[in-house]
Parts: sequence; C-alpha cells; structure tokens
Amino acid sequence: MLALSAHLSNAGLKVIGDSVVAAGISAEPVDETALAEVADLVIAVGGDGTMLYAARLAGASDVPLLGINRGRLGFLADVSPAEMLHRVDQVLSGDYVKEARMLIDARIESSQGSSGSATALNDVVVQRRESGRMLDFETRIDGRYVNAHAGDGLIVATPTGSTAYSLSCGGPIMDPLLDALALVPVCPHTLSDRPIVVPSGLSVEVVLLERGESKAEVMVDGRMLGAMTTEDRLTVSRSDSRITLLHPPGYDFYDILRSKLHWGRDSRFGAERPIS
Amino acid sequence: MLALSAHLSNAGLKVIGDSVVAAGISAEPVDETALAEVADLVIAVGGDGTMLYAARLAGASDVPLLGINRGRLGFLADVSPAEMLHRVDQVLSGDYVKEARMLIDARIESSQGSSGSATALNDVVVQRRESGRMLDFETRIDGRYVNAHAGDGLIVATPTGSTAYSLSCGGPIMDPLLDALALVPVCPHTLSDRPIVVPSGLSVEVVLLERGESKAEVMVDGRMLGAMTTEDRLTVSRSDSRITLLHPPGYDFYDILRSKLHWGRDSRFGAERPIS
Amino acid sequence: MLALSAHLSNAGLKVIGDSVVAAGISAEPVDETALAEVADLVIAVGGDGTMLYAARLAGASDVPLLGINRGRLGFLADVSPAEMLHRVDQVLSGDYVKEARMLIDARIESSQGSSGSATALNDVVVQRRESGRMLDFETRIDGRYVNAHAGDGLIVATPTGSTAYSLSCGGPIMDPLLDALALVPVCPHTLSDRPIVVPSGLSVEVVLLERGESKAEVMVDGRMLGAMTTEDRLTVSRSDSRITLLHPPGYDFYDILRSKLHWGRDSRFGAERPIS
Amino acid sequence: MLALSAHLSNAGLKVIGDSVVAAGISAEPVDETALAEVADLVIAVGGDGTMLYAARLAGASDVPLLGINRGRLGFLADVSPAEMLHRVDQVLSGDYVKEARMLIDARIESSQGSSGSATALNDVVVQRRESGRMLDFETRIDGRYVNAHAGDGLIVATPTGSTAYSLSCGGPIMDPLLDALALVPVCPHTLSDRPIVVPSGLSVEVVLLERGESKAEVMVDGRMLGAMTTEDRLTVSRSDSRITLLHPPGYDFYDILRSKLHWGRDSRFGAERPIS
Repeated sequence: MLALSAHLSNAGLKVIGDSVVAAGISAEPVDETALAEVADLVIAVGGDGTMLYAARLAGASDVPLLGINRGRLGFLADVSPAEMLHRVDQVLSGDYVKEARMLIDARIESSQGSSGSATALNDVVVQRRESGRMLDFETRIDGRYVNAHAGDGLIVATPTGSTAYSLSCGGPIMDPLLDALALVPVCPHTLSDRPIVVPSGLSVEVVLLERGESKAEVMVDGRMLGAMTTEDRLTVSRSDSRITLLHPPGYDFYDILRSKLHWGRDSRFGAERPIS
Repeated sequence: MLALSAHLSNAGLKVIGDSVVAAGISAEPVDETALAEVADLVIAVGGDGTMLYAARLAGASDVPLLGINRGRLGFLADVSPAEMLHRVDQVLSGDYVKEARMLIDARIESSQGSSGSATALNDVVVQRRESGRMLDFETRIDGRYVNAHAGDGLIVATPTGSTAYSLSCGGPIMDPLLDALALVPVCPHTLSDRPIVVPSGLSVEVVLLERGESKAEVMVDGRMLGAMTTEDRLTVSRSDSRITLLHPPGYDFYDILRSKLHWGRDSRFGAERPIS
Repeated sequence: MLALSAHLSNAGLKVIGDSVVAAGISAEPVDETALAEVADLVIAVGGDGTMLYAARLAGASDVPLLGINRGRLGFLADVSPAEMLHRVDQVLSGDYVKEARMLIDARIESSQGSSGSATALNDVVVQRRESGRMLDFETRIDGRYVNAHAGDGLIVATPTGSTAYSLSCGGPIMDPLLDALALVPVCPHTLSDRPIVVPSGLSVEVVLLERGESKAEVMVDGRMLGAMTTEDRLTVSRSDSRITLLHPPGYDFYDILRSKLHWGRDSRFGAERPIS
Repeated sequence: MLALSAHLSNAGLKVIGDSVVAAGISAEPVDETALAEVADLVIAVGGDGTMLYAARLAGASDVPLLGINRGRLGFLADVSPAEMLHRVDQVLSGDYVKEARMLIDARIESSQGSSGSATALNDVVVQRRESGRMLDFETRIDGRYVNAHAGDGLIVATPTGSTAYSLSCGGPIMDPLLDALALVPVCPHTLSDRPIVVPSGLSVEVVLLERGESKAEVMVDGRMLGAMTTEDRLTVSRSDSRITLLHPPGYDFYDILRSKLHWGRDSRFGAERPIS
C-alpha cells in the first residue's frame, strides 16, 4: 500500500484513509464514515472481504470502488499487486470498465416496533443460533406465501453474492447483469426445498415458526445485523442505490469465474473421467 | 372431453379440433396447423405434455391456452376434470388469471449454410447421441466465451421449464415473472460446472468440440429438432412472441409448486429429521 | 403412555421409568443412568429424537429398544400409537425383528491432555461456532491425510444417521447393514469437496487449521460434546458395542424410506415432469 | 511404448501384445483373448479408459495390471510417461503396492430365457434409449423392493467407479477398501430419489416399467451390453473374481483424489469465498 500511496501522491493526487490505514501510509486520516463522501475513488487493498467492507463505507454515496487483491484474483478485487500501479494509472486516465452492482436492504422489524437494517452487496443470511436444532421458518415473496422450511437457514443472495456462500449451498451462479435475487435454503430438511430465483423488484419476507429452534441470527455480508425471534420479521428488498465497481480494461466476469472454479483444466490436460 | 365439448356446444360455442380429436367429440375438424389461427381459445386436455403440444400449435398466434389435467395437477395444466366445466364457464365469463410466458427459439446452423429452428416453452436440450461417451462442448453468451464442458449435455431452460427436466439436473426454480434463462449442465464431468442464470435478452451459443463424442442431438420441449456435429452451431434466444396461459381465479405458482414438490408435509405432520 | 403402562402392568410386568416419566404413569422411578441396566426392554415413546436419547441411556448395556412414534412414522421409532398395544404384545411374545445398529465414539483430545468423549447412533458433527466465518479444518483417515476443507463443518454419519442431517447436506443413504461411515462436508467452499464413504473400521480424525474461524463445536447426536480449538483433535471411530433395535414383524427399512421421502407418489398419480 | 518395449526386451523379458500393439512395438503378437492367460504382467499405456479395456482382458485370470497414463495422472493409470521406465523397473524388482479391486457382474435376462452378461470394474448403467422421454424403472435389493424411479437412468457403481460417471451424477466417493455398491439415479424426476450405498454382497435388480419409455440400454464400463425392454431383468452382483492393480510405492488413493478434484488449491492460495 505504501508503494501505491507514494505513486498516487507523486501523481499529484491527495491520498486519504481511515486512521489505521492513513498511519501506515502517511496519508491524511479521515473519519471512516466520511471517507466515501470526500473521496473521488476508493481503492480497497486486501481481498473480496475488504471489498465488502469498502462497499459498506461507500454506502449511499456514488464513489466508485477499485479492488486490489493481495492473494489470488478475487471476484470483486480483481487487480493483482504486480499490475497494481499500471492498473491504477489506467483508471486515472479513464481507461476502465465501469459496472453497477445491485445492493439489497435487510430489515428486521419486531412486533414491538423496533427495527434494525443494513445493506448488502453479497447476501443476507438467516441462520440458526443454537446448535443441534433445526430452524423452522416461513418465506413470502411480496406478501405471497412460498414455503415452510426447516434446516440450517436461508440465504438471500444478489448476483454478486451468488458466487459466495450461496454457491456452497447449491445456489445457481447469476450473471452480474441479472436483475434477480436467489433464495437458497441451507441444508434443508425437505430434499425438494430448492433454490428459487425471483425478480429483484420483489421483496422477500422471513418469519420464524414456533416449532424447532425459535432463535435465529441475521448476517449481512458476513456481519451480524441482529438476533431474530418468532416476534420478528425479516424483509429483504433491492436497495435504491447501487455500488459502482471499476475493473481493468478487458474485464470479463466469466474469465474470473473460470479461474476461480478451475473450469476447463481437465479438458485441457486430458479426459479425467474414465469412459463409462 | 365429450362432456366438455357438449357443454361448450350447449353454450352456443363452436367447438373445433384436429382430425383425431374432432372425431372423438363430434366437433368440426380443422387442420392442426390452422387451429390456433381460427380459435379464440385453445383448451388442452391431458397433462403438461399436452400443453407443450398446444403451445407449439399456438405458435406465433395470440390465442390463449387453458389446460385441463387428466392426472394430478400440473404446472401448466392446472384445471382438474372435476371442476372442468365450472372453470371453463368462469373463463368464458372473463373470470380468469391471464399470464404471458416467455418462449425461446433454438436454431441449429451448419457451416454449410443449412439450418433448422423451433420454439420452446420449457427448454432446449443438447445431449450426447452415442452411449458411453461424454459430450464435449463450449458455451458462449452473446458471443463471450463461458466454458468448455464435458458431460451428458446442457439444458437451456425458461422460467416455465425450470420446474421440468432442469430441476432434475440441479437447476434452480425460476419465478414465472423472471426474465431469465438457466444454463444447466447435465451430469457435468467437472464438479464446479454449475447452473448459470442469465438475462433472457442474451443469446446462448453452443458448439461441439472435437474431443469425446462428436455427435449430439438437440431436443426442443422434448421433441428432436435435429442432430448436431462439430460443424454446427446451436443458438438459443428469447422469442419475440410469448404464449398466453389462462388460469382459474386465485391461481398461484407457489401453491402449485408446494403441491408438486410435497413441500411442507413433513412440517405439518411432525419433525422428520432426528435431532442432530 | 398411561395406556401402555397399564397394559404392561396388567400383563404382570414391572414398569419402570426415570423420575419424570415414572411420575406421569405411576411406574417405579429408577435413576436415569441405571435404567438400562435394570430393564429387559426399553420402550421409547416420542420420536426419533427420543430414540436417540434412549440409545444414549442404553449405552454399553445389551438392552433392546422399541420406539413408539407420537407423530408420523420415524426411521427409528416405527410403531404408531394406534397399534402400540398390539405391537408390544407381539414383542413380548417374541414376534419381532431384531436389528443391531452400529454406534460410533467421538473423542476430543487437547494437546494439554484433557479429553471428552461420547457415543453416537446417528452422527458426530464439527461445526463453526462464530457466525460469518468459515471453518478451516483437515481430515485424516487412519492417519492418512485426506483433505483441507473450508465451510460450515463436517458430519461423520453412521448408516443410521445417513437419513438424518447428513442427507440434508448431500450425503448418501446407507443401508443399515453397511459397515461404513460417511464423511459429509457441510456447505463446502470447494465445490468438489464431496461426501466420502469409508469402511467403519477406519478412524476419522479432524483438526482445525489456523486460518478462518479457529473455534468449532462438536455435536454428538445433536448434543454438544464440547468446544474445539486448533489445539484439539477430534477422533471418530466405531464403538465396540452396538445398539439393539426391535421392530414389528415385517419391518423393512426401504418401506420406511419410501414413506419418509415421499417416493413413488408422482409415479402413482401420473407423470409430473412435462415431456422434455 | 517403443521405449518401454525396448527397455523390457533389454531386461531379458518377453514382450507380447495384441496384433495392433505388437506391430507398433515389434513385440510378439498374441490373440487378444489369450493375452491375460499368457502374460505375467499387463502394462496398459493410455488412460483410465485403456485400463478398463485391460481389466476386461485380464478377466478371470489373476494377472496384475499396471497403468501408464499418457495424459495427466489417472485414477487407475497412475504412472506418468516421464517416470515410466523407473516405475516398471521397481515393479519388476518387487517394489510396488498391490491392490485388489472389486468387480461386478451385470446380467440381462429376458422372459424368453436368453441372457447376456459382462463384468465391470467401474459401473453398470441403465439408461433411456430414446430421446425426450423418461425411463421408468423399479429397483430391488436381494429381492426386496426399493423404489420406482423415473429419470435418465441408474448407475450401479463399484468403489473404483465411484469417482467416474457416478460422481458426476451426485454419487458419493467410496474408499477403494469399502465393500459396497452405490445405486445412483441419473437426473431423477423425484428430487428425494438419492444415491444409496449397500453392502456389495447384495444383488441389485432393475426392471423397466410400462409407463414412459419402455426401452433402455445397459452399458458396462462404457460399452453396450445390450438393449433392455419391459420383458427383461437386469441383475448386478459382485463378481467372484477381483482385479489386481499394481501401483508405484507410496501410492495413496487420497493423494490422487486431491489432485484430480483440485482439492486444497483455494486454501493454499488464499480464501476464495468472500466473508459471508
């Protein structure tokens, strides 16, 4: 990050960061919550997790995000450290692919009137809280009853989140351009309880049932939003705002997908499956 | 059908059918290909398979379809024989739910210039032709390379087809309102080769690779469109036309889904899964 | 239970129970831990969960178990209340199917020397403890390295447990006669991380890795055995003892399986899947 | 193969082959069917498919097989060309891992009394023959009714075959030491129709049902055994004979599994899944 910071300063740009980051790279410290409003570009250095964090900071502001991945290529952080300076220069000169990604809002409302909410780029997850018991819950889409589920929980994923936890739970990959949400049951008790993809304009509601475990927790992009009881209702719906990602020129979602999922390797190196 | 035909005639309506059907119910015989253009309403009596057949006949015409299911409730044919006469009267008096469902066009183009095409309500399937060998093929979406696959084949499914063969192959359920196509690999050799959902405006292209079995066949709603070799290209894209389904008042896709997939039975009758 | 208790007393048998049960049915109260040693037959009234509880009590003793299910038919508790008295008479007169089911021992050993252990009829589950982070762990079979996993956890299931939580996580059904254990990853990050079935004579070892979440909990038949850190090692191996289940004459595992999994219903009532 | 043949000849060994192979490497031609009886060691050069072919030749004889893989490491052919000469010398000097693998016999019996049979190292597959229709069939295990299935077919796999086609259809991986068969439905219509693992001593029977497509074909290790109609019965049971595989010293099934399934790569190179 030091090299990046120096490079940007040399280019006559003002580099800011939250107090921790700023100290490490001798940039100007700015309060975390104000960063996105002050900045013209947010550069997240880390991995896809760091990008989720940056997306939260960017929040309702319009500031675009660029992600540099310290490990291997990420779905969101798709610039490698080796090409970092070159890529940043490209972006600064206007040579980039700009992409708007859908966000979703999660809101827990209790019967007592209190509520909490948060915004996700990847997913909202309702999961059981105590060990050894199934979570029983009901889903509705725009008020219409869908199903009574039992299992470890439910994921509501955006196209961006479809390659994250959702994929591990049997959810489909969704093209970033798709205007949809996936409802993916986690280890469902009923074997025919399968992922459902719905238009993103529809709102998804979840309430817990009295049977089974009656306490759940709601995670938003991997962070706890709050606990949930049978008195509460979780609503997930598309946000009014979107996040803007910047990618290097030539960016291709399917290119990253092939790399991350090891697609095509077998094909290239010979048939893996014995003839049968 | 005789009862239905008599009922309609008594109501002063003209009943027509193709030569086989017409003979059975003493209706006026009309050539199969002309039926949809002449009729104001097509009533398909049978099951979801009969509805697919009726959808093919309806083709580019605007005539709405009503499906009567001889067995148990179908996804498309959702009127039971017991309530048939009542439901038909409702429809005739304007009391129904009207629904437009997406169609997709499949086209096989050979390098020699010849081509064949057909329209599907459910799905287009590319599958291996000879036994005991995998099919190797490549997919593109709007010209962008997606993946090289090996396995039994690929399904391109509409939301309507998402509850048919696609579901048996691990594809997601798609809400009928969703404007999307699912690409579902059939028994893929590579375990990370998973279903992808894309906006329906994008076209899907498939070509066979030289390795493995080099002959495939293309099925459109369960009917053979034609054979395919490494010289050919299959393109699947959304049709300009849609099909119009009529449902009884109160129709609810998720209601049918729950019934067909036995959802919620365990929940109602007690916990099926031992505590663990 | 009152009717059952009276029926047994009338037959000249001595009915005992733990303090809670005994009070409800005016039977002789016996300390829970001594029940299995004193009794000649344990009758569990409830569901499969109650059977798991009774199996724990039966422990190393040889006392056979009979399960009466208050809800619908269970995998373990397969006598319905309606036929309860008749079935119990059959058992008392020697007319039953006797079946030995494998048990497995789970042991957590810390590097400090302390350890805890418990016996399972269904499964041993290692699962993440904190929300929003994956569990990273390694598996070995009889000391041989198998894999480094990331995800929600791992199930080691007996054939009996193969129709419980394991089935919800993609594990195979195992015939009760099979001498095997299934290692089933829960929502694995790597899509090719699939269930493995090994001979039951092999021991399964799990250690946590430093990356990701470093705390897990170990559940044995749905009850917490203890927490686990990167300092600990979990070993699962076949028990020396087995549990003896009594079933009504004509008992058939596949008959119960068909009932529980709703097999064959579609076939009987007509083709569900549209032709495609 | 020429280098290998020369190397063996130089070592004073007699090299034989079927007519085609022998011509290419100037070895003594021996009739294909007699090869296994004459030879002391069969070396298959190609891939896992070639090993399946060699296993058929080895048939009931006790001759051991060594597999050299021209492409990347195979499950059965696990010697690379680069190390070929060295590995063969090791084997000849007695430095190898010897492993017996289960074989299964498939037999189609018609009601007219005719029958055909073949032996498999990997799997026996019943599959639909005509396009666009489901296959309806019933399974029995040792005469006990298991289920009525609808779908693309059924795989009966050995532990060796569990990493082949079976794995693509959702079957579990089975340890080579496991004495079991897996029954794996292919794209089953009923979503709860899941893989079942049974002791290998039990025989598996399949008959077609009148509904749906009434013609199937039976593949044994990827080769057609014959057609099957509703008049026929397919029986699959463990062979009396086993095949003997020779592996390089240090051979480890899980080592190959990790390599073939790309296990552990993500873990090594950084967390792939965004925190969620």
